Amino acid sequence: MIENELAPKKRGINPAAFFIISFLVIILTGAVLLTLPISSSQGKFTDFLTALFTATSATCVTGLVVVDTGTYWSDFGHLVILLLIQIGGLSYAVIATGMMLLLNRRIQLRERLILQYSLNATSLRGIVSFLRNVLITVFVFETIGAFSLFFVFIKNYPLLKSIKFAVFHSVSAFCNAGFDLIGGFKSFTEYVSNAHLVFTITTLIIVGGIGFIVIHDIIQKIRGIRMHLSLHTKMALLTTLFLIVIGTLIIFVLEYNNPNTLRPLNLWGKLLGSYFQAVTPRTAGFNTLNIGKMNPSTLLFLIVLMFIGASPGGTGGGIKTVTFLVLWLSVTAVILERKSVRFKDRAIPWENVKRAYTVFLLSLTLVVVSWFLLLITEPFPPLNILFEVVSAFGTVGLSTGITPYLSPFARIVIILTMFLGRVGTVTAGMAVLIPFSKRSQIEYPSEEVSIG
Amino acid sequence: MIENELAPKKRGINPAAFFIISFLVIILTGAVLLTLPISSSQGKFTDFLTALFTATSATCVTGLVVVDTGTYWSDFGHLVILLLIQIGGLSYAVIATGMMLLLNRRIQLRERLILQYSLNATSLRGIVSFLRNVLITVFVFETIGAFSLFFVFIKNYPLLKSIKFAVFHSVSAFCNAGFDLIGGFKSFTEYVSNAHLVFTITTLIIVGGIGFIVIHDIIQKIRGIRMHLSLHTKMALLTTLFLIVIGTLIIFVLEYNNPNTLRPLNLWGKLLGSYFQAVTPRTAGFNTLNIGKMNPSTLLFLIVLMFIGASPGGTGGGIKTVTFLVLWLSVTAVILERKSVRFKDRAIPWENVKRAYTVFLLSLTLVVVSWFLLLITEPFPPLNILFEVVSAFGTVGLSTGITPYLSPFARIVIILTMFLGRVGTVTAGMAVLIPFSKRSQIEYPSEEVSIG
Ligand SMILES: [K+]
Ligand SMILES: [K+]
Repeated sequence: MIENELAPKKRGINPAAFFIISFLVIILTGAVLLTLPISSSQGKFTDFLTALFTATSATCVTGLVVVDTGTYWSDFGHLVILLLIQIGGLSYAVIATGMMLLLNRRIQLRERLILQYSLNATSLRGIVSFLRNVLITVFVFETIGAFSLFFVFIKNYPLLKSIKFAVFHSVSAFCNAGFDLIGGFKSFTEYVSNAHLVFTITTLIIVGGIGFIVIHDIIQKIRGIRMHLSLHTKMALLTTLFLIVIGTLIIFVLEYNNPNTLRPLNLWGKLLGSYFQAVTPRTAGFNTLNIGKMNPSTLLFLIVLMFIGASPGGTGGGIKTVTFLVLWLSVTAVILERKSVRFKDRAIPWENVKRAYTVFLLSLTLVVVSWFLLLITEPFPPLNILFEVVSAFGTVGLSTGITPYLSPFARIVIILTMFLGRVGTVTAGMAVLIPFSKRSQIEYPSEEVSIG
Repeated sequence: MIENELAPKKRGINPAAFFIISFLVIILTGAVLLTLPISSSQGKFTDFLTALFTATSATCVTGLVVVDTGTYWSDFGHLVILLLIQIGGLSYAVIATGMMLLLNRRIQLRERLILQYSLNATSLRGIVSFLRNVLITVFVFETIGAFSLFFVFIKNYPLLKSIKFAVFHSVSAFCNAGFDLIGGFKSFTEYVSNAHLVFTITTLIIVGGIGFIVIHDIIQKIRGIRMHLSLHTKMALLTTLFLIVIGTLIIFVLEYNNPNTLRPLNLWGKLLGSYFQAVTPRTAGFNTLNIGKMNPSTLLFLIVLMFIGASPGGTGGGIKTVTFLVLWLSVTAVILERKSVRFKDRAIPWENVKRAYTVFLLSLTLVVVSWFLLLITEPFPPLNILFEVVSAFGTVGLSTGITPYLSPFARIVIILTMFLGRVGTVTAGMAVLIPFSKRSQIEYPSEEVSIG
């Protein structure tokens, strides 16, 4: 498929850099809007670092906040945040492609490859059909989600507020943003045993996080355009299911006797709580249990889940489920002295495996370096700091509660971690290093799966 | 070079399993000897778990101890520990090979490959010449080291004790064992500003940890048998130098104002202390500063250094310097879209890169799982537990001081971590999984470097 034009085009700008810069423009625009008095509920100017932190967190669909979203910002502020979330959540799929089409640039092969990386799409063909399916999916799920949530909130809030809450939280959940308007940094802790809310929110999280490639694939299968689900879709579904089931079980066991989390709940509540907390690291960031009061072992387990994150090409972050599975398939191949990395009857190209390992190593390095920097300046327990950093990297937004107390230096480190976690360490590396690269060689793809 | 006999031989036992079992036999023999009253200074029986912990720690040249080596054990106990260290430190190079030769088994190709993995040797030829050089190196360096250390200890101790201390600590340092006889879990903290001891011990650590492949290579170069140093040697030397220089600088900066470590020392003492603590994660385990009183950021930095560890085919542990360098070269290759992983003008075979990633991922998994298990049961600060686990995995032996207080469950976890860290996660994986492997395919090597 990829036969020519392998020589770098010097006249265009580096597309990885272009992608990153457009992301930065969105964040800075949001930050400026949030500093204005109209955005704060008190009608006062907000300091730029707080505005920048919030705008980055919203655009990167992270959900970490230094001020309480519900009470600090005005309705206008909430609208700005909602737009940043929607733009950020779909940015990979829509904005970057749209901008390129809008600017009427002929998409160069090399740029399409980079775009493919950003999109994490497995085929260069059918981008338009893909985009249409993305937009339909988003609209359908966010609408249904909002309707469903409306019937939860109308029990506690007046009509207009219930509508606002339903729409905001549906978008926030589908985009895996984790921002909430409940107030007092409480997230959904008051709804821990509310099955209606739990299943609505978790379904939105899972569908948003499973990746548009998978959704597109399933739609095509249903319509009969495709005969079989792709290797990628099978891997993403299997890993997601595995992580949710195992996650629910382990959280249930570890927290069963914790008086600050599961213990006061009945069996059904315990199961709902465990299930919600197993889904949210994929990488929504809402919580129904108090994360700061969990056992250290549970925190470490959640850190691992957050690091793995969601599936490629969705609204979630992390190194991605498929990457995680490919890493283990590769280890199995080496130990069993197999020549190829296999899943069922298909071989996974080495190009994918190399990329999986690169994503993994760069991500881990980012997390360790951020942790190290914060350990130098912050007085909080080291495990809580690690939790915060992985939450930022994976664009999760869960917190043990230390975010509002971070020093300005630490806030800047977290902002950078969120940003690099969202645009992707490999894309960032390419933006910086490809201009210095002397030559480029691209392998012929066989059957691709999306990595990272 | 590898042309035939690729089909698995069903009649021989799995060599990875053979290697592991012989290691287990050594440990269990040592543990039984240490339980005997003759081994304890009080002349009493020692409980088996303590004896097993000590024997594993000595044989795996780790150095973590639950009882103080100098005061708890008798002279006979010290002799047992010394022998276990010497056997363990040279086991990869001598014992496994020696046993196979002794049993007069014709070494099958497949077994030689496994042996090559265990030895981390880069060529199948010249094992005898290699072994001779290993033994000469060990004898020469341990003798010179003991002479040098004698002149340190004679200032504080009577003649016989000074000889014993000189020999024990020279062997312990060269084998990167980290066991000391000073007493009170103090290691060499009283010698922090003693340049004579610092440079003797660090030289022994570095030479023992650089790997016999490198030493063999250098000896052959000096004798004119080789024209150039191998790629492996260049990579090991470069990475080791880099880690020591950067390590010294960072520890110096991070601990400069810590009143419990560097602050009371003058500039020369500060430099000596930083240098010693930068060398010891490669993976000796002696310390001249109080590890438990270091800043959290310094602990994390030491954790990273311990995880990387020493060079392949030496007495040290960790994922190994060359593995670490190969990982980064591979990341660079992916980001720059290079077809091959390069160092200077040589390409590193993908087989090596795959193995490097496998070592890295399995090691990290081992560390995270052990950390998780200990977080469930142990009440210590999570970062200190991580430090302990990585120290065990990397067979380092540094501790923040929690080892003697670990629960029996945690001791068993640490014993397993030390063991798997020493025999190697990949070897252990092969021992367990290869019997179930359906077929084996081995790539043709081009120029090999040793991994992990
Ligand atoms: K999030
Ligand atoms: K050691």
